[in-house]
Amino acid sequence: MFLDTGEVFDYDVLVLGSGPGGQKAAIAAAKLERRVAVVERRHMIGGVCINTGTIPSKTLREAVLYLTGLNQREMYGQSYRLKEDITVSDLAARTQHVVGREIDVIRSQFARNRVHLLTGSARFTAPHTVEITEDAGRVSTVTAEKIIVATGTRPARPDSVDFDDRTIIDSDGIINLEKVPGSMVVVGAGVIGIEYASMFAALGTKVTVVERRERMLEFCDLEIIEALKYHLRDLAVTFRFRESVASVERHERGAVAVLESGKQIAADTVMYSAGRQGTAGDLSLDAIGLTADARGRVQVDEHYRTDVDYVYAVGDVIGFPALASTSMEQGRLAAHHACAEPVREMQAVQPIGIYTIPEISFVGRTEDELTDERVPFEVGIARYRELARGQIIGDSYGMLKILVSPSDGRLLGVHVFGTGATELVHIGQTVMGCGGTVDYLVDAVFNYPTLAESYKVAALDAMNKMRHIARLHG
Amino acid sequence: MFLDTGEVFDYDVLVLGSGPGGQKAAIAAAKLERRVAVVERRHMIGGVCINTGTIPSKTLREAVLYLTGLNQREMYGQSYRLKEDITVSDLAARTQHVVGREIDVIRSQFARNRVHLLTGSARFTAPHTVEITEDAGRVSTVTAEKIIVATGTRPARPDSVDFDDRTIIDSDGIINLEKVPGSMVVVGAGVIGIEYASMFAALGTKVTVVERRERMLEFCDLEIIEALKYHLRDLAVTFRFRESVASVERHERGAVAVLESGKQIAADTVMYSAGRQGTAGDLSLDAIGLTADARGRVQVDEHYRTDVDYVYAVGDVIGFPALASTSMEQGRLAAHHACAEPVREMQAVQPIGIYTIPEISFVGRTEDELTDERVPFEVGIARYRELARGQIIGDSYGMLKILVSPSDGRLLGVHVFGTGATELVHIGQTVMGCGGTVDYLVDAVFNYPTLAESYKVAALDAMNKMRHIARLHG
Repeated sequence: MFLDTGEVFDYDVLVLGSGPGGQKAAIAAAKLERRVAVVERRHMIGGVCINTGTIPSKTLREAVLYLTGLNQREMYGQSYRLKEDITVSDLAARTQHVVGREIDVIRSQFARNRVHLLTGSARFTAPHTVEITEDAGRVSTVTAEKIIVATGTRPARPDSVDFDDRTIIDSDGIINLEKVPGSMVVVGAGVIGIEYASMFAALGTKVTVVERRERMLEFCDLEIIEALKYHLRDLAVTFRFRESVASVERHERGAVAVLESGKQIAADTVMYSAGRQGTAGDLSLDAIGLTADARGRVQVDEHYRTDVDYVYAVGDVIGFPALASTSMEQGRLAAHHACAEPVREMQAVQPIGIYTIPEISFVGRTEDELTDERVPFEVGIARYRELARGQIIGDSYGMLKILVSPSDGRLLGVHVFGTGATELVHIGQTVMGCGGTVDYLVDAVFNYPTLAESYKVAALDAMNKMRHIARLHG
Repeated sequence: MFLDTGEVFDYDVLVLGSGPGGQKAAIAAAKLERRVAVVERRHMIGGVCINTGTIPSKTLREAVLYLTGLNQREMYGQSYRLKEDITVSDLAARTQHVVGREIDVIRSQFARNRVHLLTGSARFTAPHTVEITEDAGRVSTVTAEKIIVATGTRPARPDSVDFDDRTIIDSDGIINLEKVPGSMVVVGAGVIGIEYASMFAALGTKVTVVERRERMLEFCDLEIIEALKYHLRDLAVTFRFRESVASVERHERGAVAVLESGKQIAADTVMYSAGRQGTAGDLSLDAIGLTADARGRVQVDEHYRTDVDYVYAVGDVIGFPALASTSMEQGRLAAHHACAEPVREMQAVQPIGIYTIPEISFVGRTEDELTDERVPFEVGIARYRELARGQIIGDSYGMLKILVSPSDGRLLGVHVFGTGATELVHIGQTVMGCGGTVDYLVDAVFNYPTLAESYKVAALDAMNKMRHIARLHG
């Protein structure tokens, strides 16, 4: 909706941004019967998550898996590839459909809960006061008792890179590609970079990943990341670690990335995926006595409250972990706190999901972290290929690893690689969150044939190792 | 291996049958350093489960889903169907591959654990003594301190039905079909009957299901079974409840099923799936003073021990629930008891998985059971189409339902319908098994976008309803 200029509207809770964090904050406040409005730019309902980030990329991934028949290749061979020549329109149709439906879901959720959706860009002009500028230049003013900032991030675009959104793009530009590139350089081996690298590799693009650091995704289990690298190399991905891009030359029919080491890599497309920049700098925070840091982010306390007590911030704009899943929960908790509702703390055990091909997910700590902290653990491993379900779906590489405390049997970490990893991890998370131990998994009956059985196999593996040690101790 | 005739071999534990129950019993006893042998007929390693039952049927199902593109149809329409004319050899290749691999897994597991595999049919001849007859007629004798019967079941074949394993088949005969029938009558709407009915319906076969009772799968949630019926009718399945088959006339090019009501149904294939018969009657149990019941089953106590204290029985041969998942756990527990190892009881909360299209799974009790027992509950529902993941995979019908105790927030039951149901149910099972409540699910952070988020949506739904009642109470 558009507000009449001149008039000042007032709300109990004003949310800046309609991504996962802002959306859940608005709904939570509305359910507590507050008068709520959300400010979002035109054509950006749902934020980056819905429009150019998570949802398009996960939909693209699903389309890639299906259309290439990659998951089924072990069973049927290349001959069953569904489409020989997969076009961008094959991929885009599905993505547009899902994005459209998700926007409808959000709009109808706002309407059902009487949340006003104000269209435009927001900036603070005075305490409790936000000015909203529409595309057409119309300006209106809104006041609110509580304000929740959930404006997210945008891809960092270093000045040294000459983006043209065609040959040299950032991760938000992927969905606008006109064709599936024959070759691609991905700069930055973070989550987004590697997710896209694996998707394009699955489509047959020759991908080179350039990463400044020695390794990638260093918060993940090392064994799993090495398995991922192995699989990506098998799909013709080349890794260049400890290398930086000095410049990218744009040519009529592609680009040449020049590394600082002097190597040159020709590619149809170069995707820059070297971090994201917070958007707090656009909000004129100084009008309320706040400042954003150099990366455009805002500091918050344990209640997601900024230094200004009526202003909260949630989601990517406050930094790590910058996942839709945690942002949603932050939004809900911030709204409850802002509305003086009793708030339980966010659960300590939160999963991380990485939608590479194959996918990765984990909760809790890694072997390396535990070793650094001198916390002893035993490892239990299950390989999908030992499970009937693994054979049936032809996933021969998947694995589940549990890290068990030998002193009390509690799970210290669960790491999953392969089909369904992002779903499966929640079983281990529930054991951890509900105070269960490895004994629960040893004794549990799982549906047969499922991948969930891997928990039982891994638990028995860990248990047998712990028993062996106990026996040797007499 | 074959034993020399004349010589008598002795074992600590002898297991009759190598299906899920026998296999896990043997491995568990071997891990406790017992001398173990398993008796199995040639070409039946892994039992019915591996050779003609669960594994072929679940592999077939996976092949059907993939080759018909059924799962993706909502996204791509019929035009993306992978194979226009799906042949039995398309389906069988995959099944044979998986069955072969599963047999390899079992063989190598036996070998690694030094479990002897004795080939032939077993019968008791004296206490602690079993005679094994090979196909070739060679007979050998084995003695053992403990014996575990895990010989399973075979399809019941009423005398009134003239099976020819071509036109009129039982469920074990499905995998030998020469072509995908154009029409099919399925007699018996039990789990096996409905699983195959849904698979053939997905392949385009015109299926009629004839069931004596008023409804089907009455241990499941009624709402979910009604949704299943709706979906199967949408795939052109006809249901005939409260009807019995009087006779089946075999013809050159098909069969006519005549119902007792006088209706006639023509079909290329008639599948009888009206119960399974235990095999205990084949074991000459009288030689050790045991008897099988009329349905070929053996009675056991809570330790899976028969009336003869050194003889145990596990799996389908002891009756309900006759699932591979529970049989495995029974085998492990029986072996531990037989080897005087401390045994924890089997967990009370066991999932049921039904691999129809769409699939069904649940743990705990149904709404009807709770109502009959006058246990109050609140319902929380999540629909897949409200989840980003549901949109991405194009599952618009899936749903998850939790039944919550209003007094203490514990989960009384979890019922899932749709993609991944048999995997997803384990999250709720873990909450129940580890003593968690609906609060855990309300507060949990789930990977986004996943189907597991449905737990949070359902938990919030139940919670809002309970809060509403609490508010009205003041």
